[in-house]
Amino acid sequence: MKILILGADGYLGWSMAANLFSTSHDLILVDNYSKRRYMKILKRYPLVETPLLENRIKGIKRKGKTKFHQIDCTKYEDINKIIKKYLPDVLIHFAELPSAPFSMMNIESSWETLRNNLHSTFNIIHSLKDTSPKTHLIKLGTMGEYGTPNIDIEEGWLKINHKKRSDKFLYPRQGSSLYHTSKIMDTDLIWFYTRMYGLRCTDLMQGPVYGVYPNKKQDNDTVPLFTYDDIFGTVLNRFIIQAIAHEPLTVYGSGSQIRGYINILDSIECIKISMNNKPKEGELKIYNQFTEQFSVLDLAKLVKKSLKKINIDVLIKKVKNPRVEKEKHYYNAKHSNLKKLGLKANKLNEKMIIQIANYCINYEDNIKINTIKPKVKWR
Amino acid sequence: MKILILGADGYLGWSMAANLFSTSHDLILVDNYSKRRYMKILKRYPLVETPLLENRIKGIKRKGKTKFHQIDCTKYEDINKIIKKYLPDVLIHFAELPSAPFSMMNIESSWETLRNNLHSTFNIIHSLKDTSPKTHLIKLGTMGEYGTPNIDIEEGWLKINHKKRSDKFLYPRQGSSLYHTSKIMDTDLIWFYTRMYGLRCTDLMQGPVYGVYPNKKQDNDTVPLFTYDDIFGTVLNRFIIQAIAHEPLTVYGSGSQIRGYINILDSIECIKISMNNKPKEGELKIYNQFTEQFSVLDLAKLVKKSLKKINIDVLIKKVKNPRVEKEKHYYNAKHSNLKKLGLKANKLNEKMIIQIANYCINYEDNIKINTIKPKVKWR
Repeated sequence: MKILILGADGYLGWSMAANLFSTSHDLILVDNYSKRRYMKILKRYPLVETPLLENRIKGIKRKGKTKFHQIDCTKYEDINKIIKKYLPDVLIHFAELPSAPFSMMNIESSWETLRNNLHSTFNIIHSLKDTSPKTHLIKLGTMGEYGTPNIDIEEGWLKINHKKRSDKFLYPRQGSSLYHTSKIMDTDLIWFYTRMYGLRCTDLMQGPVYGVYPNKKQDNDTVPLFTYDDIFGTVLNRFIIQAIAHEPLTVYGSGSQIRGYINILDSIECIKISMNNKPKEGELKIYNQFTEQFSVLDLAKLVKKSLKKINIDVLIKKVKNPRVEKEKHYYNAKHSNLKKLGLKANKLNEKMIIQIANYCINYEDNIKINTIKPKVKWR
Repeated sequence: MKILILGADGYLGWSMAANLFSTSHDLILVDNYSKRRYMKILKRYPLVETPLLENRIKGIKRKGKTKFHQIDCTKYEDINKIIKKYLPDVLIHFAELPSAPFSMMNIESSWETLRNNLHSTFNIIHSLKDTSPKTHLIKLGTMGEYGTPNIDIEEGWLKINHKKRSDKFLYPRQGSSLYHTSKIMDTDLIWFYTRMYGLRCTDLMQGPVYGVYPNKKQDNDTVPLFTYDDIFGTVLNRFIIQAIAHEPLTVYGSGSQIRGYINILDSIECIKISMNNKPKEGELKIYNQFTEQFSVLDLAKLVKKSLKKINIDVLIKKVKNPRVEKEKHYYNAKHSNLKKLGLKANKLNEKMIIQIANYCINYEDNIKINTIKPKVKWR
């Protein structure tokens, strides 16, 4: 298959590519390096500086017909040219600004998140509809689109019975940051164009992803961007880095916020499963892409217990929550569709946490501990 | 009260202003004349060329402390300066591109609709939150946000019972054009910021509006922009102009599409009622703003019957629907909240249709009949 990956320099984009290099698929990688640019401006740093994508690819031995194009998907002519040139079988769209704190930082970063995410999705859809309508668009959404409703979270859709009648709708969504709201709008946009023009789309509602190796073989040369700071980092990365730096793990608020999590290997597997289950013309498939749910406090406790095994003593400290979010809430999210299609979950355990920690310890001297304390407050 | 009206040159904006001139309110009117600009580019013309807003105001005798500023709400500095200067009690936001066909014309007009509508709403909210958080934001939405679901349409919100639990959500929405989708996103945006920053907002889900006089006194000098073309015109205007020009009324498809309609005087009254019912901090009030529902075919038949009384013979002709929309569908939309707050409906009747027709007959020579046939097709 010809697979076009947009946002291939990011954590997920690079991991997907690195996993596919050794397959027979042709890969076309696209990125505009905007995340690198924003990280530099905001003085946030990945644990390890990785080479630019075009240079990184050169170092990969088995990579088939991989190509790279430095392109901004918010420029229609540029992205349309690529889609026209390759007519990909699958387009995986990771080309979005993925940070909730970035989207709540100031008016410029808020609008940039909304504009970038909507405009990239809009351009991709328009190009597909006019140029390559049979391409399967796989789009990364987030479990955060659903928020924390007081009813069970279904997979994308909800049959509503009301006054003796019924209809099926997109599951009602309500995000807790502008970033999450931009993803809700993305889903609206994709669903509108899918039903209007008979496109074939899959929208993956993903929970926070963890892990450093995109292949079973643990090769440090293929590790994706590892971020742990207050703006671009994810919670498990942050905890592990704090532990290694002998700082307490900072839990926002009570820590009883529950989310669904997924291993990077499983995340890649889910996208592969999606690729093999192409929607029909005019169909939008939605899967909830996570394998287990737990609270932030339980996550901190698991890190503490795990790292004890490699003689790292960990303290847990609750700090004022910089976000506006429900801390005590009902949470029961369905995630059976991908399982039915064959996903075997790699659950989070002590071994996994130690694996990530061991990777990070190699680069202990790079840790910039002052980039962890949350500087962006929702209110 | 100090009332800031954005988009004051449009059909609704001007009508609102023209109705408020004789009250004791201070009015600040804002427009960027983008609709005039697009109409010129697309060679679509209002029935009567109206003077620019700043000149039109000069002709009004009783107008209190009315001011006008030519400003584009997608420029943050400009709109923020106005909000900071006046700190309005009420901000009525009509500053959006309101046309479904325009939003489906080509990639440029599609993106322009999405960008303009979201960016103006985004800027207004950011300015209010930072500068004037107690201002009551009244935003015009559309009944088209709900689409045509198979269950009753409630007013903005829906309590959902699911697997023995329940929660209240924004009523699930699904529009039939990119314009309608942009309004869905607007609602998401307003609801996000309202609950996040304790703003006070009213979102009015309005049906198609008809009528030419914004005051009980029928003064031709205060008639708002009257459009009847395929892109900017509304259906009743189009039918009346076709009748006057001795052309058949063109009904799209079977004509069994049902919508909720409202008289311009009632629309103004609804906004006044909203002004007098300010939401609490962090509250988003949503009203369905229409007074009766009927099918497009029934509307055509009513025009035919009415104009017969002034000796205009009317033919009705079904044409291929240029839109993608359900023609046969369930439709039962609630609209009792504004009634409870005192709205007395002026229902559509023969007298009203004759009133509009008599106004149009004065300008019969201006009719450009070749601008009516639909040139924008959804597919």
